[in-house]
Amino acid sequence: MHRYPKHLIQLIEKLKKFPGVGQKSAQRYAFHLIEWPEKELAQFAALLSEIKSKLKTCDRCGCLERDNECPYCDDVGRQPQILCVVSHFKDVFAIEETHEYQGLYHVLGGLLSPLEGIGPEQLAIEQLKTRIQKLGVTELIIAIDSTLEGDATALHVKKELEPFDITISRLAFGLPMGSALDYVDGGTLARAFAGRRGF
Amino acid sequence: MHRYPKHLIQLIEKLKKFPGVGQKSAQRYAFHLIEWPEKELAQFAALLSEIKSKLKTCDRCGCLERDNECPYCDDVGRQPQILCVVSHFKDVFAIEETHEYQGLYHVLGGLLSPLEGIGPEQLAIEQLKTRIQKLGVTELIIAIDSTLEGDATALHVKKELEPFDITISRLAFGLPMGSALDYVDGGTLARAFAGRRGF
Repeated sequence: MHRYPKHLIQLIEKLKKFPGVGQKSAQRYAFHLIEWPEKELAQFAALLSEIKSKLKTCDRCGCLERDNECPYCDDVGRQPQILCVVSHFKDVFAIEETHEYQGLYHVLGGLLSPLEGIGPEQLAIEQLKTRIQKLGVTELIIAIDSTLEGDATALHVKKELEPFDITISRLAFGLPMGSALDYVDGGTLARAFAGRRGF
Repeated sequence: MHRYPKHLIQLIEKLKKFPGVGQKSAQRYAFHLIEWPEKELAQFAALLSEIKSKLKTCDRCGCLERDNECPYCDDVGRQPQILCVVSHFKDVFAIEETHEYQGLYHVLGGLLSPLEGIGPEQLAIEQLKTRIQKLGVTELIIAIDSTLEGDATALHVKKELEPFDITISRLAFGLPMGSALDYVDGGTLARAFAGRRGF
């Protein structure tokens, strides 16, 4: 679209950086933005400019802070002896939605991926060891994706923590709620078999 | 997601205003934006703030200007006696990509839609009449969507321009390039039959 004004091209280039957004969607978003009222655009621009100052992560666990406090580390009502290891801070919100977990969190900041050049030194594993000792952790729950990278990362974390006298578990794999057996993929079904429980 | 920080909630609300973006996509975009480098965010914010000053539409035809000039009205190489009527300025770029058209444009600014409260007075029809006289237009091409609203708008424009001695045509309807007959919807096929040409 060589005839687009320069400003529009720059705007589309920025929107194309959104995950899963290609040229067509970016154009659609850009044309939509052109019609937004000036006030809305100013508010949106201000929100973007303030992301780094307003959305900070906790130095200890890596979760997003709220009002400059960690909603987990700074909550005396939670159990610091139980630690849940996740890859990204966004996963914490999904876990919190279940209201099942009352311990603290530890964000690794990614998954092992040789292809993307992410090795163990890029993940917050040394910090995890330090926290286990400092908090006197007795139970560790690994809540990591059931993908190739997730499995490799979970195994690596487990191996690194072998010297510690703690219970380590990983979230169960099996049939998702409401699933029909003949629509579930083979990998899930195999894991559901392997993990079958007394009934 | 009641546990999101306020700033994140506000950011998600803005992203949900994008066309076709719901809660899940907005969250995905917001989490991605949090990881953008500060410089990228500042550039994006600046682009948004400057949209109204940098992306103006031509007073005459309603197309997006480039460097404060209309790429069509201000181009002496184009034929002012031929006018192409579109609903939105973004449609112009698609037409220009074909390199088939050398006349000028007229952006209506929408389509008739009683449900959305868009009546004839919201469209730039009076301006169209003025331009037809001023430019001495002899041919008018209606390049409007083949939807219910598009058909109503095209008919309305045609009726309004009856007093003028000009040739009015509408873009052809028929099979899209590379289409397979058994996959084309009935409406398209019916219009392709009605519009069949000597071969």
